[in-house]
Amino acid sequence: MKLTILGSGAATPTLKRGVTAQYLNFNERRILIDCGEGTQLQVRRYGVKFQRIQYIFISHLHGDHYLGLVGLLSSMNLLGRVNAMHIFAAPELELILKQQFELTYVKLNFELIFHHLTAKTTTLVLEDKVMTVKAIPLKHRISCYGFLFEEKIKERGVDPEAIKEFDLTIPEILALKAGKDVMRGEITMPNEDATFDPPKPKSYAFCTDTKYLTRLVDEIQGVDYLYHEATFLEKEKDRAKATFHTTALQAATLAKAAQVGHLLLGHFSARYRNTDELLSEAQSVFPNTTCVYDGQEFYLAKNN
Amino acid sequence: MKLTILGSGAATPTLKRGVTAQYLNFNERRILIDCGEGTQLQVRRYGVKFQRIQYIFISHLHGDHYLGLVGLLSSMNLLGRVNAMHIFAAPELELILKQQFELTYVKLNFELIFHHLTAKTTTLVLEDKVMTVKAIPLKHRISCYGFLFEEKIKERGVDPEAIKEFDLTIPEILALKAGKDVMRGEITMPNEDATFDPPKPKSYAFCTDTKYLTRLVDEIQGVDYLYHEATFLEKEKDRAKATFHTTALQAATLAKAAQVGHLLLGHFSARYRNTDELLSEAQSVFPNTTCVYDGQEFYLAKNN
Repeated sequence: MKLTILGSGAATPTLKRGVTAQYLNFNERRILIDCGEGTQLQVRRYGVKFQRIQYIFISHLHGDHYLGLVGLLSSMNLLGRVNAMHIFAAPELELILKQQFELTYVKLNFELIFHHLTAKTTTLVLEDKVMTVKAIPLKHRISCYGFLFEEKIKERGVDPEAIKEFDLTIPEILALKAGKDVMRGEITMPNEDATFDPPKPKSYAFCTDTKYLTRLVDEIQGVDYLYHEATFLEKEKDRAKATFHTTALQAATLAKAAQVGHLLLGHFSARYRNTDELLSEAQSVFPNTTCVYDGQEFYLAKNN
Repeated sequence: MKLTILGSGAATPTLKRGVTAQYLNFNERRILIDCGEGTQLQVRRYGVKFQRIQYIFISHLHGDHYLGLVGLLSSMNLLGRVNAMHIFAAPELELILKQQFELTYVKLNFELIFHHLTAKTTTLVLEDKVMTVKAIPLKHRISCYGFLFEEKIKERGVDPEAIKEFDLTIPEILALKAGKDVMRGEITMPNEDATFDPPKPKSYAFCTDTKYLTRLVDEIQGVDYLYHEATFLEKEKDRAKATFHTTALQAATLAKAAQVGHLLLGHFSARYRNTDELLSEAQSVFPNTTCVYDGQEFYLAKNN
């Protein structure tokens, strides 16, 4: 389970930072989160096999979060894609993509499946065998969502030695995996004697762009990794408020209150030459903070 | 007068070549020709003062020629632009830009003035004191235009020594500049005794994307610089024909027949690791050929 930062800057791409895009391998689900202009180049630059992407989540329709989408989808098409693509975004994005492909005579050879984000409260938007994704309404100048990716609890592991010792049958093993005890006539084998706990489910929350939103503390309580925007330093907090952005200090305050594992900061205003001040400001409240850079990778779990 | 290559690749941006975009300073008119995805980053990379751009010419609506436009215009807006922008393009581009700005709540603080390219024959689309621009219909899978930029003939230069020797008056100097003789009573001072020829007007033709089009020879006869696409090698000429593109050999054949000054080749298929073969193929017909690279600059005249 790996997160790759494809772009970590705000507003306009610079020679140092692309605009927002992240690639998430979450339990072998291949996910793109936001797709600013130039994302198709960033995926090449950082070695992402972009044809594998199955799901695209777009937080909101500001150019630095979606303008790379037409180019990315066009290149996927040109390079032979046939698998459907799920796009989770504001309904207007569907209109924009459809009009643009139509007026420029682009016929995609794969299906675009749109999932409109419109809910006013946190909503489950995707669920499968291994994960759930929730869309969390943020507070920005236009409709904007954060995304919470949560692994489901895996089955209990069955001790190979117990299988051998008691010559466990397939139905018995399945029962143990599901947490049940095994009954042989009068004798009960307690589940805990033959199994071990599954690994703790992993979780990742992505929150950009938004003004400082204290209710997020409940929404993202205890996530392993939280990516949160930190467009400004605390000394620019009035500007942050006016533009519906968050300061590094505010993001760290959220991370601390929500008891997250790691805080990743990004979406830095181009006014900051480096992230030293942003980092020290955040770490004064929440030490386990990283200011991300383009191409940086984070392993959410050891299994891949 | 300077041309800056901002992107020289075809179809999709790669780590080596951006997609098509060129910046042309033509007699202090600041012109952008095509605007593929990532152009706003390329202008930063190559030091182009992009707020000075007054005219944007878009050859056609394939993604690698126009997808950078919304991002570029948005960034111009964000950075305070107020001067109007003239856009010469297929009418559909106006619909695309307007819908996209409207649906994403972008309010530009400068005017977009659209000039629709629809003519079936070569047409004058812009004229001012110092230059003319013609749109030349090309032959591609969708409506596509080349552009011919021509300097107007400047006034004759008046010899400073003649001004001093004959104590020429302002009306006399203006008459000489306009090519007239100066009359003082019975005495005629022939124009050629006091003036010298103005510099030869410069010209630049931009032709991409198109199948091999021999009628271009007449349209671009004698231009100083011709940029022509050379997507393929001659050995791929069937593929070139099928996809409405040109080979390096064909482009060179045009350049030779049209007696251009310099031939610039670009829009290379990503299949070619380098341009050695493309260049030697073209130079076998037209020696004064360059295969361009991103960031390369060409001085069309010495005056700037």
